[in-house]
Amino acid sequence: MSCWFNPYKPQSTIAISTRIRLARNIMGIPFPSRMSPEQFKTVNDLVRSAICDCEEPIAKNLKYISMNDIPQIERFAMVERHIISKNFASNYQNRAIIISEDESICVMLGEEDHIRIQVLFDGMQLERAYNIANSIDKILCNRLNIAFDSRIGFLTACPTNVGTGLRASVMLHLPMIGDNMKNFSNIINQNGFTIRGMYGEGTKALASLYQISNQKTLGMSENDAIKNLKIITQKALEKENTARRGINKLWLEDKVMRSYGVLKNARLLTSEELLSRISDVILGVGMGVVESKIWPIELLVNTQPNMLMKKLGEMSPKSRDIERANMVRDLL
Amino acid sequence: MSCWFNPYKPQSTIAISTRIRLARNIMGIPFPSRMSPEQFKTVNDLVRSAICDCEEPIAKNLKYISMNDIPQIERFAMVERHIISKNFASNYQNRAIIISEDESICVMLGEEDHIRIQVLFDGMQLERAYNIANSIDKILCNRLNIAFDSRIGFLTACPTNVGTGLRASVMLHLPMIGDNMKNFSNIINQNGFTIRGMYGEGTKALASLYQISNQKTLGMSENDAIKNLKIITQKALEKENTARRGINKLWLEDKVMRSYGVLKNARLLTSEELLSRISDVILGVGMGVVESKIWPIELLVNTQPNMLMKKLGEMSPKSRDIERANMVRDLL
Repeated sequence: MSCWFNPYKPQSTIAISTRIRLARNIMGIPFPSRMSPEQFKTVNDLVRSAICDCEEPIAKNLKYISMNDIPQIERFAMVERHIISKNFASNYQNRAIIISEDESICVMLGEEDHIRIQVLFDGMQLERAYNIANSIDKILCNRLNIAFDSRIGFLTACPTNVGTGLRASVMLHLPMIGDNMKNFSNIINQNGFTIRGMYGEGTKALASLYQISNQKTLGMSENDAIKNLKIITQKALEKENTARRGINKLWLEDKVMRSYGVLKNARLLTSEELLSRISDVILGVGMGVVESKIWPIELLVNTQPNMLMKKLGEMSPKSRDIERANMVRDLL
Repeated sequence: MSCWFNPYKPQSTIAISTRIRLARNIMGIPFPSRMSPEQFKTVNDLVRSAICDCEEPIAKNLKYISMNDIPQIERFAMVERHIISKNFASNYQNRAIIISEDESICVMLGEEDHIRIQVLFDGMQLERAYNIANSIDKILCNRLNIAFDSRIGFLTACPTNVGTGLRASVMLHLPMIGDNMKNFSNIINQNGFTIRGMYGEGTKALASLYQISNQKTLGMSENDAIKNLKIITQKALEKENTARRGINKLWLEDKVMRSYGVLKNARLLTSEELLSRISDVILGVGMGVVESKIWPIELLVNTQPNMLMKKLGEMSPKSRDIERANMVRDLL
């Protein structure tokens, strides 16, 4: 089964993944922060029958799962696979998801809004992801009384989502922008987008993985938001590629092969070190310096704490560092 | 050809090598610091004929070489192989050596004293080395008028060598004594011995290679000096072995295999980094954690700056870091 971190063939070693999220709510029911258990059930039942009982081809592939039926380690492993939010994994009671087998589609019920449609793909596939999210949105809008104001658009729990309810984002691997990240991040913010490190706060993100997403949901169409995100992402790719053309080949080979050598030989690997070593290997794969049997992003996701424990059972952080190193040696 | 850094089979991964040096001078000729070119020639000729024209089996194996005939890179490569002193390699004019094919015996003519007999073996072979130095000394004493005072012993240029003129030393790899080195070094000094790092000054020697040698040459027989050095060396070995028994196996494997992985993959290696990585590998070989195709000490000596340039031609430090990494990858 292929998914965003484990594509059949990676599209790009810079644009790692694409995410579309639409926030929707049902008229006449309070937002989740004020919902009673009965109201959670009402939302779950309404959305479940709207999607799972409809005849649209896309709905055939989707399965309703109560969050109560998912054990804690798997819930947080889903966070590590970017399928659900951390907050949703913690406050899971009465909640449910409607999810596709390859996990590219996941509808969270009872997160900050009643309904959050998420579509997640590898590489840069904004239109494809948006079209799928949109077709699920259409099913919902046709069958449910979705809260919508003709003047301002979709109503959401948080004012920052009011309007389109769309958050489109792209995860980029930008190891060579590095020192210029602060400048670049100012440009991004001035254009109504945000950039943040996927791992670690501040400008120096661990693993150099960054997520750029739109901020504006009001007074702008979905298509414009996506078009603008594509433009800003293109700028990031150009900046990164320009920096890569200036790399000293020997310095690069040394940096990449050292990290590769450590990954292939270490007996203890913390998540932090893994992130930084994997980042070097992704860069190396992108620059043709090293070949990796496994797409490094898959290695990164599969060795996150809960992903490890899902496979090998609950264990201490120290034991995880050992098992992480074992798994990395085996797979690399 | 086997030599101290390239033995057929390493005797020990802690006791790396043994060195015996005897300082001798010829009566009636000033010490080298005050010698004229003619007097250098006189010393060279006297010692050359004393050794090379004699019928002793040991002398058959020895060859006289004028230092003028040895190019600069090879002179300093000899320093890196511990065959001659750095001072002798710099102030080489008018000087000569008498050396065995395997370089285990080297007699320097015109160093600080007229004659310095050096015998160098792998592992801990103090008696064997001393016996060989002694047999050469006997040849000299029988054929030349060696400066000797019946009350105090052999006369030497520096008062610290007067008496036996013997410096016996053992090179030890002590990575686990580490933090206790200062304490241990005090004990050694109190017993009339010195310990110093082979690479880098101070208590934290690069590569954890230390040389313990006798200080006392006056009022003590050669046999006692060697016996005491053996006792103090035994103490160091015990201390190191005790510390090794306390090592966490996983920590050790991680440390050793990381260094091994870096050596097998790096594209740039400074001498300093090589020393510290090789030290981990020697420890790993000693503890049975890693197998090395090449005895790491051989790798260490062969990748020293002048040893590299002797093989590959003169080059900049940066180029040496590249060639060092290439050689290490090839040999490991």
